[in-house]
Amino acid sequence: MEKTRISELAWPEYAQRVRDGAMVLIPVGALEQHGPHMSMNPDVLLPTAISERVAANIGGLVAPALVYGYKSQQQSGGGNHLPGTTSLDGNTMINVVRDVLRELARHGVRRVTLVNGHYENSMFLTEGVDLAIRELGWSGVHDFRCVILSYWDFIDETTIRAIYADDFPGWAVEHGGVLETSLMLHLHPHLVNMDLVEDHPPAEFPPYDHFPVKPELTPASGCLSSARRATAEYGELLLRVAVEGISTALGTAFDPAT
Amino acid sequence: MEKTRISELAWPEYAQRVRDGAMVLIPVGALEQHGPHMSMNPDVLLPTAISERVAANIGGLVAPALVYGYKSQQQSGGGNHLPGTTSLDGNTMINVVRDVLRELARHGVRRVTLVNGHYENSMFLTEGVDLAIRELGWSGVHDFRCVILSYWDFIDETTIRAIYADDFPGWAVEHGGVLETSLMLHLHPHLVNMDLVEDHPPAEFPPYDHFPVKPELTPASGCLSSARRATAEYGELLLRVAVEGISTALGTAFDPAT
Amino acid sequence: MEKTRISELAWPEYAQRVRDGAMVLIPVGALEQHGPHMSMNPDVLLPTAISERVAANIGGLVAPALVYGYKSQQQSGGGNHLPGTTSLDGNTMINVVRDVLRELARHGVRRVTLVNGHYENSMFLTEGVDLAIRELGWSGVHDFRCVILSYWDFIDETTIRAIYADDFPGWAVEHGGVLETSLMLHLHPHLVNMDLVEDHPPAEFPPYDHFPVKPELTPASGCLSSARRATAEYGELLLRVAVEGISTALGTAFDPAT
Amino acid sequence: MEKTRISELAWPEYAQRVRDGAMVLIPVGALEQHGPHMSMNPDVLLPTAISERVAANIGGLVAPALVYGYKSQQQSGGGNHLPGTTSLDGNTMINVVRDVLRELARHGVRRVTLVNGHYENSMFLTEGVDLAIRELGWSGVHDFRCVILSYWDFIDETTIRAIYADDFPGWAVEHGGVLETSLMLHLHPHLVNMDLVEDHPPAEFPPYDHFPVKPELTPASGCLSSARRATAEYGELLLRVAVEGISTALGTAFDPAT
Amino acid sequence: MEKTRISELAWPEYAQRVRDGAMVLIPVGALEQHGPHMSMNPDVLLPTAISERVAANIGGLVAPALVYGYKSQQQSGGGNHLPGTTSLDGNTMINVVRDVLRELARHGVRRVTLVNGHYENSMFLTEGVDLAIRELGWSGVHDFRCVILSYWDFIDETTIRAIYADDFPGWAVEHGGVLETSLMLHLHPHLVNMDLVEDHPPAEFPPYDHFPVKPELTPASGCLSSARRATAEYGELLLRVAVEGISTALGTAFDPAT
Amino acid sequence: MEKTRISELAWPEYAQRVRDGAMVLIPVGALEQHGPHMSMNPDVLLPTAISERVAANIGGLVAPALVYGYKSQQQSGGGNHLPGTTSLDGNTMINVVRDVLRELARHGVRRVTLVNGHYENSMFLTEGVDLAIRELGWSGVHDFRCVILSYWDFIDETTIRAIYADDFPGWAVEHGGVLETSLMLHLHPHLVNMDLVEDHPPAEFPPYDHFPVKPELTPASGCLSSARRATAEYGELLLRVAVEGISTALGTAFDPAT
Repeated sequence: MEKTRISELAWPEYAQRVRDGAMVLIPVGALEQHGPHMSMNPDVLLPTAISERVAANIGGLVAPALVYGYKSQQQSGGGNHLPGTTSLDGNTMINVVRDVLRELARHGVRRVTLVNGHYENSMFLTEGVDLAIRELGWSGVHDFRCVILSYWDFIDETTIRAIYADDFPGWAVEHGGVLETSLMLHLHPHLVNMDLVEDHPPAEFPPYDHFPVKPELTPASGCLSSARRATAEYGELLLRVAVEGISTALGTAFDPAT
Repeated sequence: MEKTRISELAWPEYAQRVRDGAMVLIPVGALEQHGPHMSMNPDVLLPTAISERVAANIGGLVAPALVYGYKSQQQSGGGNHLPGTTSLDGNTMINVVRDVLRELARHGVRRVTLVNGHYENSMFLTEGVDLAIRELGWSGVHDFRCVILSYWDFIDETTIRAIYADDFPGWAVEHGGVLETSLMLHLHPHLVNMDLVEDHPPAEFPPYDHFPVKPELTPASGCLSSARRATAEYGELLLRVAVEGISTALGTAFDPAT
Repeated sequence: MEKTRISELAWPEYAQRVRDGAMVLIPVGALEQHGPHMSMNPDVLLPTAISERVAANIGGLVAPALVYGYKSQQQSGGGNHLPGTTSLDGNTMINVVRDVLRELARHGVRRVTLVNGHYENSMFLTEGVDLAIRELGWSGVHDFRCVILSYWDFIDETTIRAIYADDFPGWAVEHGGVLETSLMLHLHPHLVNMDLVEDHPPAEFPPYDHFPVKPELTPASGCLSSARRATAEYGELLLRVAVEGISTALGTAFDPAT
Repeated sequence: MEKTRISELAWPEYAQRVRDGAMVLIPVGALEQHGPHMSMNPDVLLPTAISERVAANIGGLVAPALVYGYKSQQQSGGGNHLPGTTSLDGNTMINVVRDVLRELARHGVRRVTLVNGHYENSMFLTEGVDLAIRELGWSGVHDFRCVILSYWDFIDETTIRAIYADDFPGWAVEHGGVLETSLMLHLHPHLVNMDLVEDHPPAEFPPYDHFPVKPELTPASGCLSSARRATAEYGELLLRVAVEGISTALGTAFDPAT
Repeated sequence: MEKTRISELAWPEYAQRVRDGAMVLIPVGALEQHGPHMSMNPDVLLPTAISERVAANIGGLVAPALVYGYKSQQQSGGGNHLPGTTSLDGNTMINVVRDVLRELARHGVRRVTLVNGHYENSMFLTEGVDLAIRELGWSGVHDFRCVILSYWDFIDETTIRAIYADDFPGWAVEHGGVLETSLMLHLHPHLVNMDLVEDHPPAEFPPYDHFPVKPELTPASGCLSSARRATAEYGELLLRVAVEGISTALGTAFDPAT
Repeated sequence: MEKTRISELAWPEYAQRVRDGAMVLIPVGALEQHGPHMSMNPDVLLPTAISERVAANIGGLVAPALVYGYKSQQQSGGGNHLPGTTSLDGNTMINVVRDVLRELARHGVRRVTLVNGHYENSMFLTEGVDLAIRELGWSGVHDFRCVILSYWDFIDETTIRAIYADDFPGWAVEHGGVLETSLMLHLHPHLVNMDLVEDHPPAEFPPYDHFPVKPELTPASGCLSSARRATAEYGELLLRVAVEGISTALGTAFDPAT
């Protein structure tokens, strides 16, 4: 199997792969607490694992992950007041994305996919991509294309039903819950301790955000729903569904005919 | 009835209201195409109308709306490539929010609500608020509180069912659709021409974003769902539900006991 | 009469107007105290009113006003320490102008006029325009033209004499004075209460600026000269002179032969 | 006579002078064309000469001049399209001022005067000072005071009349004219060649600014009025008047009782 | 042995370690070509390996590495024009460092060491640290301490002589040379292919930098000196010396008595 | 001899010189303490003197020096905590360089040399040059070339041996030492007082930087090595060697054949 990690290629290999038209995937995550039962890196490890499998499927390359992300929000990640969560300012995040894309384009890369594993990153990725495309246009590069996706958006209804039956709480509160924990159990079981899962109902929030956060609205675990039902088998299923879905979708997304 | 618009107060009136503890609402919108049947200002006019009614209910003040917003995204607003849509860079938007909040705090205001009418603004409002609170902390102001909300999050299931029956397409594609058009028909009927509504099924998008946008994915109208069923009566209902919901929620949000 | 407000057009109307070569006027103001006798929005309402009349005269369009401006200075606006005055940092103001011009140019607009109603904005408008023209050049747009004007610069000597006789204090201290108050009395009389005008001689300042401001140098009213002699009739005259002067000037300014 | 130039002091001398409460003057200029008869540095040399004399009078210190300024504007400096004129972006200028003031405050300086010699700098100096004072406040420094002045504002009516009789064209068009040329003839005669003065009436401009500039509006010389009547004697007079005026004014400006 | 990787801790473990006063090391590297014989990640992997061993020695923690660094310079890294090298703008790099330090300080961390593996990062780390300390001061945190080091500065003369005898070319041209290759052979032998080492004399450069780079000054390999003599044994030695030197030095650096 | 100072040329002279292809040298320094025996401007005066002599040799021009530089670091300049040292933030420094280069390029200049006199500036000059070249490329200017050099890098081994015999401490600690003091004694003897030289061994530092600085590591003089052996004769020699070396090097650097 061809290597996929850019960082592990020597430059002549990379240069050849780029000349051959390789697409580049960039996992984008965060250093963020995910409850007492799990390490703080699932938002990095999960999109990295998915990116590497997708790259293997479609002949792509994986750039080093962005391991620090935008500030955790209470209704999607528990809040940025929690210990361990280590985030960038919005403008810093935007500029990191812009800079990395600008460099890849300088190498000759023309198709990049940002594989997001941290909900709060999305709009800053969007702005970073927009600025990169603007600057590339100034440099005379007009055929650079970029996809932004979040891997959970590729988990289909059938899979959700298979895992959650009727109790799917929505991705919004899946922070440190069944989805992430199952994937971690499958991929990095030594970073999960199911004995420490705190079983509680999904967090409930009002239809607005209050700043500074009211810490009492986040469950004491830091998770927004319980991971009790997570299993490595679910993780394997979720991984397969995500990888297949993304592999297929990128074929369409970057189809030159579209 | 007490005046609510800050811009229409003389400064001694404003100063007194602030000393009395008035909360300030800031409508945040965009200049964005909303289809051939409607003006480009619903994202400003609707949160403004709601803010003024909420302010009247709870004794608040309304600051001048932020009338330019963040870039329209294809899956929520049709895309920023469309004519008329006039947007700010992410960092500009962040800094506008930060600056205005910093000034309100200087006046003595301690409770502000950003009433959002343009989906894409949300995360940039969040960052602007975060930076403002950080700077205010540096200035020794530690009791400044801010709520960010989007008015459609206060439309309850009952109302949705009353209007859409079983066909609610989700807020995601409600750009230029029944919600906004009904509200505009009720509030600013001269800015809507129902004869020009293009009736088409809700736009369908893949589970990722591609940049630059593929224009063919946005319906030619620029709307993401059809406004054909919009009526002024629905608008009246939606307005009432939003205003009541927000008025109540802000009482809780800013309850000193929380 | 053709519509002039961009925000009230549907996008196909706007797109057509731009294709037809319409010039765009952007009123630029501030949220700034203007004395106990007047609302805090004259710097927005006056250039807006003028812009709309000029647009009607010459077939132009009016973009939504920039309603927050640069920090009030003591010798021209009383100072930014005063309650109600709500200002942007210089760099924020610059970037807002740059962004909006960039977007208008993307639509195809090639002639824009910034109609300023707040003295302190001028140099930041200049820089915003300079940055926009620079970036547009990078994008291959080399025919974008922009005029910056302040409406009071179009009040001629005859009009000044008709209103002030020999007592014209200079525009520098006309903050909240006869000019603005007369225009507001004509255009928005419900936002003026002449009973609350504080009659005092024009403020006198040393030939330098001291920071932080010495508050005692600003009259307690916040105005820099007395509005006592303001009348709606003067306002009507001033409006007519400004509108005529600007309408004529823009014909010359944008004459393709120059 | 005590030394005045900070750059020529050894640090223990400087530290002592700061402990003794010395005020610091910072000349602020530009590298800007000033016509075919004069070097491009009058905006630096003139405020520097004035600052040193004022410092000698009042026991102050002079920091190295800011030798690059904001972009030359057509109606005050001929325009930034002219060869030789070398300017900073607005935000760069703002940050230079902020940084230098922050450093002086760190040394213990509490009173600074920016002595401006380039009209276009003014508002960017203002913003730089505002940001510096804001940051110093965050650092717990609340007694930092700053004066911004332009030296020509200290030329009184008597002097104007003595030099220009009834032909004073206004400072606005005094770019490369009698004021600057006379001062340079007095202070740096080898940098002036009166044989190359181009005698033309003062430039006339419309009451607005057009961007990009229309080069034909600037006299071919680059000056906005004629320096033909400039003399070293006038320069001596102007220098004396400015130095005396500023020396006196700063006593008042920084009077602890105000 | 205690865990050292922050990313692999659950938040309660991390919070406890921080309360116990743990020092945090942040490896800082780059994605940069290192010749045809080696992967592009030694600047990340080497300081990471060193940081983890130092952390194990002294009870510290290791934060996720900064994997993108400042632009490669020709005389230290071959130049930023080379394929694969993927760098951040200076200001982006500064802000990433500032943001991460600010967050660690929010968690309660008070001692951080930046372990640099990419020469060009140094001054941007310095500025990032300076800005972080400034902002922390504004937040009332005055006891935050930070060390910046580059691991090769801990290779002593004895070790240099043991490895290079009399042919030490200086760290300046050790890009992709014996130092880095030996360390990689010891730590990650599968990422090195000694058969592809190009043997050439150390690059020679003039005593200045020319921009844009003259590509012919960089050896075709992209390395600045030959790795031919690299061995895993040297790598083991270098690692031990660096780890011991840094472990000892940090004891002194953070000695509360200093 | 042709004039070399841009600031002392009238614009038509400058424009002609640029049309004739003149190279421009920009001295870059700092306002930084250099011990009790010397003024705080050697980092400006020395590269200025060198630049003017080089310019005379090769027909170049000298732009006004950048007189404020990046923050003094303890191991190269004593540290930025010392009184008198007055520094810019990194991003400010970067932008000043970018702006000035952009302007020179607008005039038609295509070859610029930054002659650095303050060690800490180097990487920020590099980034400023990189940004300028990027922006110039966007403007269609692709033949702009820039050299960055530090003058001490042109002092050859022979000269070092002639001055220091076997005691050369390395440029790193030559802050306020024999090099700079000798050059100042030769060029500006009134700014040096040899009686105040503090004779101490070269400062010794650990192989890392600690922030905030530990002030006790910097000798009380602020110098990093003793200037006791400095003489005007050494200064004359050093100046001649630097000027000759740089004059020759620039011929090669800008050789169109390279």
